[in-house]
Amino acid sequence: MSSNFKPKNYQPLEVSTIKNFIENSDKIKNIIGDTKEIEIKEVGDGNLNLVFFVESKKNSICIKQPLPYLRVLKDWPLTLKRSYYESEYMNIHSNHVADLMPKIYDFDPELCTITMEKLSPHIIMRHGLINATKYENFAEDISTFMAKTLFFTSDLYLKADQKKELNSRFIMNTELCKITEDLIFTDPYMYNKNNRWTTPHLDKQKKEIENNDDLKIAVSRLKIKFMSESQSLLHGDLHTGSIMVSENDTKVIDPEFAFYGPMGFDVGALLANLLMNFFSQNGHEKNSGERKEFKKWILNLINMIWIKFENKFCNLWDEYPEGDGYPRQLFNNKQIIKREQKNYLQNIYNDSIGFAGAKIIRRIFGFAHNIDFDWIKDDKMRAICENKCANLGIEMQINPSKFKDISSLIEAAIKLDNDSISF
Amino acid sequence: MSSNFKPKNYQPLEVSTIKNFIENSDKIKNIIGDTKEIEIKEVGDGNLNLVFFVESKKNSICIKQPLPYLRVLKDWPLTLKRSYYESEYMNIHSNHVADLMPKIYDFDPELCTITMEKLSPHIIMRHGLINATKYENFAEDISTFMAKTLFFTSDLYLKADQKKELNSRFIMNTELCKITEDLIFTDPYMYNKNNRWTTPHLDKQKKEIENNDDLKIAVSRLKIKFMSESQSLLHGDLHTGSIMVSENDTKVIDPEFAFYGPMGFDVGALLANLLMNFFSQNGHEKNSGERKEFKKWILNLINMIWIKFENKFCNLWDEYPEGDGYPRQLFNNKQIIKREQKNYLQNIYNDSIGFAGAKIIRRIFGFAHNIDFDWIKDDKMRAICENKCANLGIEMQINPSKFKDISSLIEAAIKLDNDSISF
Repeated sequence: MSSNFKPKNYQPLEVSTIKNFIENSDKIKNIIGDTKEIEIKEVGDGNLNLVFFVESKKNSICIKQPLPYLRVLKDWPLTLKRSYYESEYMNIHSNHVADLMPKIYDFDPELCTITMEKLSPHIIMRHGLINATKYENFAEDISTFMAKTLFFTSDLYLKADQKKELNSRFIMNTELCKITEDLIFTDPYMYNKNNRWTTPHLDKQKKEIENNDDLKIAVSRLKIKFMSESQSLLHGDLHTGSIMVSENDTKVIDPEFAFYGPMGFDVGALLANLLMNFFSQNGHEKNSGERKEFKKWILNLINMIWIKFENKFCNLWDEYPEGDGYPRQLFNNKQIIKREQKNYLQNIYNDSIGFAGAKIIRRIFGFAHNIDFDWIKDDKMRAICENKCANLGIEMQINPSKFKDISSLIEAAIKLDNDSISF
Repeated sequence: MSSNFKPKNYQPLEVSTIKNFIENSDKIKNIIGDTKEIEIKEVGDGNLNLVFFVESKKNSICIKQPLPYLRVLKDWPLTLKRSYYESEYMNIHSNHVADLMPKIYDFDPELCTITMEKLSPHIIMRHGLINATKYENFAEDISTFMAKTLFFTSDLYLKADQKKELNSRFIMNTELCKITEDLIFTDPYMYNKNNRWTTPHLDKQKKEIENNDDLKIAVSRLKIKFMSESQSLLHGDLHTGSIMVSENDTKVIDPEFAFYGPMGFDVGALLANLLMNFFSQNGHEKNSGERKEFKKWILNLINMIWIKFENKFCNLWDEYPEGDGYPRQLFNNKQIIKREQKNYLQNIYNDSIGFAGAKIIRRIFGFAHNIDFDWIKDDKMRAICENKCANLGIEMQINPSKFKDISSLIEAAIKLDNDSISF
């Protein structure tokens, strides 16, 4: 289950070996049809996985294969087992959100490949948002995705033994969890050679972060929550780079970080990435003020996602009260459960605020950054956008009670965005 | 890993087959020596396991073997796998508290037997306390046991992957966990044919419990915490019937309920059982008032256990700060960690109060009772003792903030004990 995990016949696919791979699988051949005139392209962004698009007259597929190391850092080995976790996650959740993930055609445990539908005309959502494209179905879709994936794998829906069995399938996804534990909850708060930030502009803020004891305690508490609270089967990396969108469709991809953890970790990841996009918008304007309306749309999106998530989650709870958590035999008084739902959702919200704060800081001061900020060419402008957003990320961790509901979060974002900061 | 788990060669041992069993194991034979003149006694209290004492000229051993069902309810199947969890728990914790558990000589995965040292002149602590025997080393011993077992398997000491690996060994102990989930957190709060209580005296209180929505919400939150918070490798059943004592020695036994859960569950189990013993004392008096001084001793014991536990736990944290939870690279300011220790221990304490409350209610209104109360022959007297104690157990669950520290808990116990109640 570790880096040492390497099936005997594993080897990285190449454009030249794909045809042979397809010929060897009846399942995939069935989808592709005749392989004589197929087109093959390697399209991976090259960090963790090989990704091939294969197009035949009949169909288009996507083959994803993990590499046994981080491509950008070849000395960083990374278990191939992660494709198992990814396909397991998709299998489990396809019971409820099949239409919000790509269809899986095949998982090959030897080559560790996942063969799935090629999404078209979808693009990575992050790219769309950077170009100020609005996705009017997104709040609806992603709130459904989060409500269903989180509810249906929780103690609210499952029997205790079913949940423990699901948990056991992911509990040894230690290496991917460790990436989160280090890169999100630890490294940005200290010196680490892999950290980077917009320098020299943010040097002072980086130092302040390293010296802020309250912040380091806050992020460590979040880390402990991440490591010890098995609430639901999480995606584990639910940012706008793990979501593909077309005008009317939403597909969540790349759940290789899947594990049982606190629900707020998934919700927070999404909120953080939308907030970062909001704060990055000024840096993408060609004419000052042209993104004003899009920025309003993004904040409204955040608001809608939370409200819809909250409602849908409670509706699922009303509809399927069969879990061992609040056994229905104890609660024939529906009002009591209604009251408890408020409390439960407030706890998810509070966790989401904290985790979102941590997700923001790691993308501005840690190893892996977002193109939302990175594609802002002007250093000074990027620093201003990042600095405001980081101020929010710090506050969300050390003073979560300031953001008691989603409107207070949005107000705080507007206020910080209006600050006049110069470097 | 379920009830279906039954090794091919499993069969219950009998006095007549023990000699053969010993002859087949070099390890055990080595301990026992010549088997010609051994004495064999079956001494199990008969609920879950067979227990044999074997005495030779050279040595005395105890052989514990699980039965595939609860003896008192033959239609209640129970996995034999529990002996694996028990021996795993003892192996893991013997790194730190070997002297506070019996020595294990052998675990036989086919017969599911655990062969260990026969403790002598130890008795079950509950019996001693019912007879008003004081154990002056107990606070010292049990606080060490809890501090070490809980600290050394937590995120404060372990690397994240080490902890996940340990957790994975116990996560499928679902059947024993289910006993806890049902018998402690659910059944006592509703009608269940296995519930019993001192009737008719406590009929009214039982009804009140079933109709107390705040209490049912409180116990369900505790249940969810039990099912989803993987803080440390718990004993899972740490009551005074799972502890053997001599005048100066303490041994913890029977960790078959072991699993990764919230630390407060173990601490709370102990506190609850000591509180129940306190409230039962009036019922064991032959002359009114004769147990007054012992009752003071018990309350002082509770106080000492918590204070010592708190100190020892923090000292371990100071001494071994190598866990991934609060990484030492982030915290060179020791004062910050000191402050965080207070917060962390307060959280364990709060959890302990809640879990102790739930443990009290299950022993007075659920399926399995304590002999502390059950051996009070006079129904009315027993009902008075139980009623007062149950009032505390309810309050600890719904108003835990009333018991902000261990002295407030003790004051509350004294106050309730002085209430004049009659039936």
